[in-house]
Amino acid sequence: MNLWQEYTPELVTDLYEFTMAQSYLQEGMDRLATFSLFIRSYPGDRTCFVSAGLEHLLELIPQFRFSGESLEYLASLNRFSRQFLRYLENFRFTGTVRGIPEGRLFFKEEPFLEVTAPITEAQLIETLVINVLQLETLIASKAARCFQAARGRSLIDFSLRRTHGVDAGVKVARASYLAGFDGTSNVLAGKLYNIPVVGTMAHSYITSFPSELDSFYAFERAFPQSTVLLIDTYDTVHGAEKALEVARKMREEGLELRGVRLDSGDLVQLSRKVREIFREGGFPQVKILVSGSLDEYTIEELLDDGAEVDVFAVGTRMGVSADAPYFDIAYKLVEYDGRPVLKLSSGKKTWVGRKQVYRHWDEQGRMKGDTVALLEEEVAGGEPLLETVMEDGKPLREPESLNTIRERFQEEWARLPRELRQTRSRSSYPVTISSSLMQLEERTAQEKKKTELDAPMS
Amino acid sequence: MNLWQEYTPELVTDLYEFTMAQSYLQEGMDRLATFSLFIRSYPGDRTCFVSAGLEHLLELIPQFRFSGESLEYLASLNRFSRQFLRYLENFRFTGTVRGIPEGRLFFKEEPFLEVTAPITEAQLIETLVINVLQLETLIASKAARCFQAARGRSLIDFSLRRTHGVDAGVKVARASYLAGFDGTSNVLAGKLYNIPVVGTMAHSYITSFPSELDSFYAFERAFPQSTVLLIDTYDTVHGAEKALEVARKMREEGLELRGVRLDSGDLVQLSRKVREIFREGGFPQVKILVSGSLDEYTIEELLDDGAEVDVFAVGTRMGVSADAPYFDIAYKLVEYDGRPVLKLSSGKKTWVGRKQVYRHWDEQGRMKGDTVALLEEEVAGGEPLLETVMEDGKPLREPESLNTIRERFQEEWARLPRELRQTRSRSSYPVTISSSLMQLEERTAQEKKKTELDAPMS
Repeated sequence: MNLWQEYTPELVTDLYEFTMAQSYLQEGMDRLATFSLFIRSYPGDRTCFVSAGLEHLLELIPQFRFSGESLEYLASLNRFSRQFLRYLENFRFTGTVRGIPEGRLFFKEEPFLEVTAPITEAQLIETLVINVLQLETLIASKAARCFQAARGRSLIDFSLRRTHGVDAGVKVARASYLAGFDGTSNVLAGKLYNIPVVGTMAHSYITSFPSELDSFYAFERAFPQSTVLLIDTYDTVHGAEKALEVARKMREEGLELRGVRLDSGDLVQLSRKVREIFREGGFPQVKILVSGSLDEYTIEELLDDGAEVDVFAVGTRMGVSADAPYFDIAYKLVEYDGRPVLKLSSGKKTWVGRKQVYRHWDEQGRMKGDTVALLEEEVAGGEPLLETVMEDGKPLREPESLNTIRERFQEEWARLPRELRQTRSRSSYPVTISSSLMQLEERTAQEKKKTELDAPMS
Repeated sequence: MNLWQEYTPELVTDLYEFTMAQSYLQEGMDRLATFSLFIRSYPGDRTCFVSAGLEHLLELIPQFRFSGESLEYLASLNRFSRQFLRYLENFRFTGTVRGIPEGRLFFKEEPFLEVTAPITEAQLIETLVINVLQLETLIASKAARCFQAARGRSLIDFSLRRTHGVDAGVKVARASYLAGFDGTSNVLAGKLYNIPVVGTMAHSYITSFPSELDSFYAFERAFPQSTVLLIDTYDTVHGAEKALEVARKMREEGLELRGVRLDSGDLVQLSRKVREIFREGGFPQVKILVSGSLDEYTIEELLDDGAEVDVFAVGTRMGVSADAPYFDIAYKLVEYDGRPVLKLSSGKKTWVGRKQVYRHWDEQGRMKGDTVALLEEEVAGGEPLLETVMEDGKPLREPESLNTIRERFQEEWARLPRELRQTRSRSSYPVTISSSLMQLEERTAQEKKKTELDAPMS
């Protein structure tokens, strides 16, 4: 039994979900509540978000049930009533989930998930919902930026060693693949999601042999059909010349060297020099793979400066979304028992009520702007983005394939205005709040201010 | 079956570990190799690292075995030979692991783990080793900084919702607890590691009731012995006055309000005002808990500015180590078959050979400096930090308890010179490289330069 096998959805929970739930139960509060999940702001240079993680959430919610072991632990805390523990024993989520499908784009303040259920149920899954959806959306949104920066060149995820644990490693491979990457070094993710796996050798491989050339030949013997040689262990130019020697020997045997990898040094100058060596040597088709501290900024810079790269292997900075390792994401109660609710805490706005996000398109089929409206509103000409994906706690459809999601991303990404796809964009996508929503918000805030702030204190 | 239960250690592997392994096998390369794990530099304002994660690694390595399903997947890739797949079928790690115990401090360029095993075995576990040890060390090192900044006040981990997945959530709770935190909101981690769990209510709880005061009384009814009220939902000062009203009613019934939580606004002014309200009301013992975008910098600033805080609830910024979400960590081959090895890639130094780190103490028992030396060297007066924790692939001792590790951290942390414990330190801890190691490094590099760079090219 390894640690990961002890992870169960029903305990991916902050303690307060349970304390609140016990109180709701004790007070007889069992009416329908709606929570909205949204991101308050764009961190770093983000201009949009890529929806990801929904399939995982839909798989986990029906598993949010309390086994003997979980109940025993909760009982051992000596905080919870027997009545509440019995409630948990019979717990299952019976609510409705509406979400923006994976691979689609959305924007700040837009709900990308709304959960409607008896308040205790919708409350108990809060931590799980945020934990699952933030990470995958965070990484897909970062990967999309790399995809754009690479200008059609191939991208590979190399991040597993430095992701925050194994769950992140797997989800980073999936989220980057859905947002335009072509493969991963991560064998576990390859197995779980049928993502193409790639990889050749480390510096340790080269240094374990008496000489670099010995190591090149040894690798070629093992993988003659897919030989990619790491050439920067001692000196990149010398390494390229040795790789050229290997390429020549291979050709004599009817084989072709697939590629070389550069992982350090001045990648612009070195990649150009390496291309020249292979081109002049008669091997213009040898692919140049580049790795080492890559992200959308360094990829863009390399290409702007004329680097010769066929494949970017992107690791840590994408895998932890290094420039923006979290979103200001919130799961907020927006309606209880038909009554719109909000908090007034400074600087933390929440749009009240059940909502829908509508997308508008221009004549060229490009995204023109979104409207956030109340669920019951009609917004002419807008495409509703939130789809009902779960009812009575059951997914309404089969899980989507990763390739379907990946295609959906590429299609929508191409329709995002070009200026918003740039690494450093000065534009922002127009999101309008409908006047009905605006009025309801204002009215609710006014009423709350009146009842909570103006009442005479004892 | 949930996704996490599909995670198996032997596939937490970059594909190249397998391709290299197949080649080693094919070449008959089965001699002992030593890999060193170390961090190249201090990111952000770090001055040291807190060792964490070793117990997890020792648990996982013996589980690094290949089941039918893993082998089937690898076979399906059509890259690996039958001979190699048979080798994996019988694989078990038979090597030696030396590590710095969890909770101890170490510094850049110091190996905190060395693995010695037949090269294929030491290579195959590379990705797992880095993935497990980086995250927990990263978080413990961040949490230690919060611990210092809090100047003896209590600290609680609130990060689960925004950690990078569930594995990270669990490990963040453990790593922050071992580095001075007092509890976590994370129920799963509470169960797995017996960490005290804490938590009361969210804003959604408050807003679901007709009025804030209603919600306060409802919560008190559910948890009269441990009532902590969130008071910033509508207005913190009004909230505090209502909480005071609740405290008075509670006292009439022989109960005492435990505390209040502030989560937004000007926390310095508001916490002082709240303290004043409760002090003047006759409730000076009511604890003030503060949350919201906290890290070592904001904690320090709050206390410097005179905030009245008893407990800091620290979430996202600690849980993702936001200012430095990864380490420049490397697992490098340093010896093969008794021969010291290194790479010459620019800017990426590796110290060759099997090593030991020695710690020196001054007369007051404070840490004075470390020496990194070759394993066989004698360093007079130094305390060796790397301990042999696994031999022939088997842990040499029972797992350490989290409380043992936590005490070790607090003891060693107190002995780190004060200037190195500061949030923004301008000092750096002296780490000396022994002259024997320096000479071996130099000699190895010279030889490599000679054989790899000066050889006439064909």
